[in-house]
Parts: sequence; structure tokens; C-alpha cells
Amino acid sequence: MDRADKDLAFMLRYENIAWFDGKCVRILDRRVYPTTVRFEECGTYQEVAQAITDMVTQSAGPFSAAAMGMALAAHQCKGQPEAQQRAVLEDAAKVISSARPTTKKRLEQVVNTCLKAAEDAWASGADLEEALFNEAVAQNERRYRRIEKAAIYLAEQFPVRDGVLTQCFGETIIGMMLRHAGNMGKHPAIYCCETRPYFQGARLTATVCRDMGADVTVITDNAPAFLMRRGMIDLFTSAADAICLDGHVVNKIGTYQLAIVSNFHGIPYYVTGTPDIGHPDASTVKIEERDPEFVLQAMGVRTAAEGVKGYYPTFDMTPPGLVTGVVTDLGIYSPFELKKYFEDGGSRELSV
Amino acid sequence: MDRADKDLAFMLRYENIAWFDGKCVRILDRRVYPTTVRFEECGTYQEVAQAITDMVTQSAGPFSAAAMGMALAAHQCKGQPEAQQRAVLEDAAKVISSARPTTKKRLEQVVNTCLKAAEDAWASGADLEEALFNEAVAQNERRYRRIEKAAIYLAEQFPVRDGVLTQCFGETIIGMMLRHAGNMGKHPAIYCCETRPYFQGARLTATVCRDMGADVTVITDNAPAFLMRRGMIDLFTSAADAICLDGHVVNKIGTYQLAIVSNFHGIPYYVTGTPDIGHPDASTVKIEERDPEFVLQAMGVRTAAEGVKGYYPTFDMTPPGLVTGVVTDLGIYSPFELKKYFEDGGSRELSV
Repeated sequence: MDRADKDLAFMLRYENIAWFDGKCVRILDRRVYPTTVRFEECGTYQEVAQAITDMVTQSAGPFSAAAMGMALAAHQCKGQPEAQQRAVLEDAAKVISSARPTTKKRLEQVVNTCLKAAEDAWASGADLEEALFNEAVAQNERRYRRIEKAAIYLAEQFPVRDGVLTQCFGETIIGMMLRHAGNMGKHPAIYCCETRPYFQGARLTATVCRDMGADVTVITDNAPAFLMRRGMIDLFTSAADAICLDGHVVNKIGTYQLAIVSNFHGIPYYVTGTPDIGHPDASTVKIEERDPEFVLQAMGVRTAAEGVKGYYPTFDMTPPGLVTGVVTDLGIYSPFELKKYFEDGGSRELSV
Repeated sequence: MDRADKDLAFMLRYENIAWFDGKCVRILDRRVYPTTVRFEECGTYQEVAQAITDMVTQSAGPFSAAAMGMALAAHQCKGQPEAQQRAVLEDAAKVISSARPTTKKRLEQVVNTCLKAAEDAWASGADLEEALFNEAVAQNERRYRRIEKAAIYLAEQFPVRDGVLTQCFGETIIGMMLRHAGNMGKHPAIYCCETRPYFQGARLTATVCRDMGADVTVITDNAPAFLMRRGMIDLFTSAADAICLDGHVVNKIGTYQLAIVSNFHGIPYYVTGTPDIGHPDASTVKIEERDPEFVLQAMGVRTAAEGVKGYYPTFDMTPPGLVTGVVTDLGIYSPFELKKYFEDGGSRELSV
């Protein structure tokens, strides 16, 4: 394993995203990465839920954390009668899936799949904790295999050189797409929007790109249209927090704006992920708003004067007319024809 | 003078923007305002030029500083023979007008007007330092009168309530437009883009709005399209660093992107200022790029990992097709008919 692969492994392997070590769930704190490498140690499933709410982990991280949190819940009720274990796991499922409103449906799917694994364990007399831990690992591995396939389809759309624009983090897909682009002899310049107010683009995406050996440049969130007009951007890509079956894409605040300016300049926007059966259409999505004070500071330093208000919608929604294609493990689909993904045998499980 | 007017006076009165006190030019340091109120004290015109280059002052501040810098140059060569004074003032004009490439033409106009005043002083035997100081004050006063007229035309376009979006600072026009909007019984919600990487919107515009008693909210630079889609924005307005005669608008990075998303949502974009005879068309504008490292930090705290590059275009250019109207002291003009402004007797002097 060379250095790039090793660093990629650190950032992207699920062992480092969220991992139940038999006592607690350790979650890489992406709020301070890469300047600080620290892990949030959650001794209870309630603490796992709180960590998800507190944005300790982002992108697909909450789904790994949620599954590992269910294994932790099994640990918490070890040796108790089945009825009590059932009550504990059902409470854990409820608490964890409510930790972040915008991805509630996906979190529900994660914990419900864990609950099914628990039923199997009770029925067969298998060890509950071990069964749920194995289920958490299996969910991650299935997801990684799907993401790798999508990464290849995405990389096929890349220009040979300049330039690809990213938004927010994108997690596993970013590393995978760069690896496979490289395999195809493509080394595009990567431009990362910094993604205020958490700076996920400047802190996380750019670090992964650097570690993969890419030519990576951070720009402020108000600069993309300027680069597009200068002809520096050939393709815009992002992951998604949810892709509704009607083609609406829910992702970090700013994605909608980038989709508009890409469209204005005739630049394609490819979103990676799989259609979300929990969201038949845009009306099922509740856009999360967070503490307004958070936009009145940057990296912990206050920017605005007292008496000035903030407004902080955390996500936005991009209508299908601005989306060129949805890049899945089965290929690229029109956002207006996402039902075909399932007709083609696509996964009903979470992806990113 | 009530509190709002008093605070407005502090931020916007030229005495506090840049002022020659007989010994040095004191410039309000807008890089740290409003959390800290400090003045950069420039003892030489070279230091004034450096302060302009270093972004100590922004928006129209550099033009006030430039004129006051010429008065300081006259002070520096006090008592010397006319030939030597002439050499000093000519050098000052050159050094000061080169301090910021994007506004070079306007800075040249300021210092050339000062040089004319110097010629008059030499011809009439008047005191050179006093003549140039009076010229600096007179330039500011003429500008303030024009801005106030433009502010009234702009306020007439305002919605009664929600909502007006601003970009970057806008300086005097912001306070003036709020005063006159209030006089018209209009109290729109003001949304200020924070304007990375210097946060002029969060730090400066929002503070002026608060001091004027407005309902003011800061949003991140990636959020405007979301607010527009929600119907929260009725009008977008910005000042300009230059308005070319062919209708291209040069302003702080991000303006072009906001003009695109405003256009996409059918929201008007009004730019305040007067056409710039120094810029017949877009080809005469050189877009300034600044230290790329500056976008890899926020409020002095590093965001990106080592090995990641930055790219920092400081301004951008908006084509006339995205500009609803140019708001001048003589009324609102189509960006495609700016020559009419001069036919109507418009000023050839700098405005906002």
C-alpha cells in the first residue's frame, strides 16, 4: 500500500469513520480534521446519536455510525432477557434515526436493517452483539462496492485535464473516482469549493484529493461562476444526502446554486448516489436548519457584530432539470428516469 | 443626531474613512472592524499606497485615501521649490494610482484631479497643502451628494418588506438607501452575503445595516439561491468597483454568480454607481488576483491541509444582460444605454 492509498484508507475506510471496538463507538471528528486527528468516543447509543446531531461525522459517516451504534446498543443490553433487549434496540433505532432530520429516512433504513439482523440472532440463538457488529461491517462493505462501481462510471465522464469542480465532502466517492480516473490516464485539476460554514471542502475533500496525488485547489464558495466563465471547469460533481425518485437532489447548502451556474455555462452536473426509495418526491424532504449563530463565525472566530442575525439552512434541493445525470453502481441515469434503476435490479439500500 | 445616525456617521463619514490631520493620513482599518476599531496611520504617501494595496480600506475608501494621500504628499514637500514639489506630487500620483490594479483608472482620476488643484495653487500662490486638503474634502462631498440621489432612486425599487440581498460592502450607499427607504415607509429585511474571504458582508455591511436599525441577517455565500427559491429575496443590489460604458460591471468576487442566480429566479439586480469613462468596455479591465494562501484560511485560522493550493480572483465581471439597471444620481439606466447618462449631463467623476 503506497502513501496515497494509506492516507485514503485512513480517511475513507470505515474502521476510521465509525468503529465499535467492543466497548465504545469511536468516530473520527471531521469538524477538526485534518488539522487535528481526534476520535469522539461514544459509550452509549445515545452518545452516538448526539455525535451525529453534532456533526462529528458527515457525508456517509452518520450511516456507518448509526449501524455501529446499534451494535453498541446490543452491547449495552448484553445478558438481559430478550424482551428487554428488544426494548433497548427499538429505543436505539428511534433515537439514532432521529439524530439528523434531513437523512432520517436513510438512517431509519440502516437501523431497521440492523433490527432485522437482531431478529435473526434471537431466532437462531446467535450472539446479538456479534450479529449486529457483523451487520454494520457488511452494510459498509456493500456500500463501498457500489461506490467503486459508480466512481468508474463518473471517471469515464472526466476531462483528461482541467477541471472538475466539487462541492462539500463526497467522502468515499472522491477517493475512488480519483483512483479510477488515474487508471484511465486522466488527471484533471480538482477545484474544491470550501463549503461554508463548516469548510468541509477546504478541510476534507481537498485533503483526500491531495492524498490521492491530485492537483487540488480550494476556492471560496462565491468564485465558481468566475472560473466557469474563464473556461476552467469542465464538469461539476457532488454526492447527495438524498436523491428523490422524481430526480430532486438534496445535498449540502450551495449545491443548488452551483447547479444553476453550471447550467448557465453549459457545464454538466453529475450527482453520485442511488435513488432513495424513502423519498418518492421532493415533498417528502424536510430541509434542516441549524443554529443561526454558526454562520456568524468562521473557524471559531466571530465575524459579525452583536445584534446581527444569522440564517443557516444546512441543505438545499436541486430540481432534476439542473441535473445532467445520476451516477449509480449500474451506470448513469437521467434524473427523470430513476425508476429504471430499480427495474435494472438496483439496490434499495443506502449509498452515497 | 440619534444613535443610528451617529454610528452611520462613524462608518460612512469621510472623516473616519481616511483623513489627513495635518501630520498623517488616518485610515479606518476595515480588515478588523467591527470587532476592533483601529486606524492605520500613514506618515508618507507611500504608506497610503501600501495601505490601499493591503486592503486596509475597501469599497470607496481607497478613493478618499488617495485624495488625502495627495494632501499628505503636499505636506511632505512643504517649503520646497515648485519643481521639486511637482516631482513629489507626480511620484505620489503614480504610486497611489498603482496601488490597486482593478480600480487603477478611477484612482488615476482622483490623483489627476488633485494635480489640477495643485496647478491652480502654484499659479495663484495659494498654500499647496491646504489646497489639496480642500480638494480631497470637496471630492468626498460631491461623491456623497451623488450617492444620496442614487440611494433615493434605489430605495424606490425596494419592496415594502422582504427582502433585499446585498453583496460585499457597498459603503455609503447602504446607509443612504436604508435611510431613504425608511423615509418612504419601507423596512425590508436585508440579507448580507458574508463575502469570503474578507467577510466584508458579515463584518461591514451587516454592521451598517444594524446601526441603521434594519432587520439584518448574514448568510453564507453559498446560500442565496436557496433563499431565492424560497421567495425570501425580492431584489439584489451591489455597488461596483467599475461600471464599463458597455454595461459590464466589475465588483467583488461573487457578484457575477449572484447576478446569474438572481436572473434564474427572475429577481432584479440593481448596481449602484456611475458609468466609468476610463472603461469604455470590458476589455479595459484587468481582474486582480491576490495571494492564493488567503483563501486557505478564515479569520486567521488555517482551513486547508498543507500541499493544497488556493486560487483567489478578487473581483469578477457581470455582463450587462444580467444587470437590470444602473442606479445613478440622475436615475436608473439600462446597462445597454449608459452613454445616455453623460448626454443627460452626468458626472464624469468617480462615484461609489
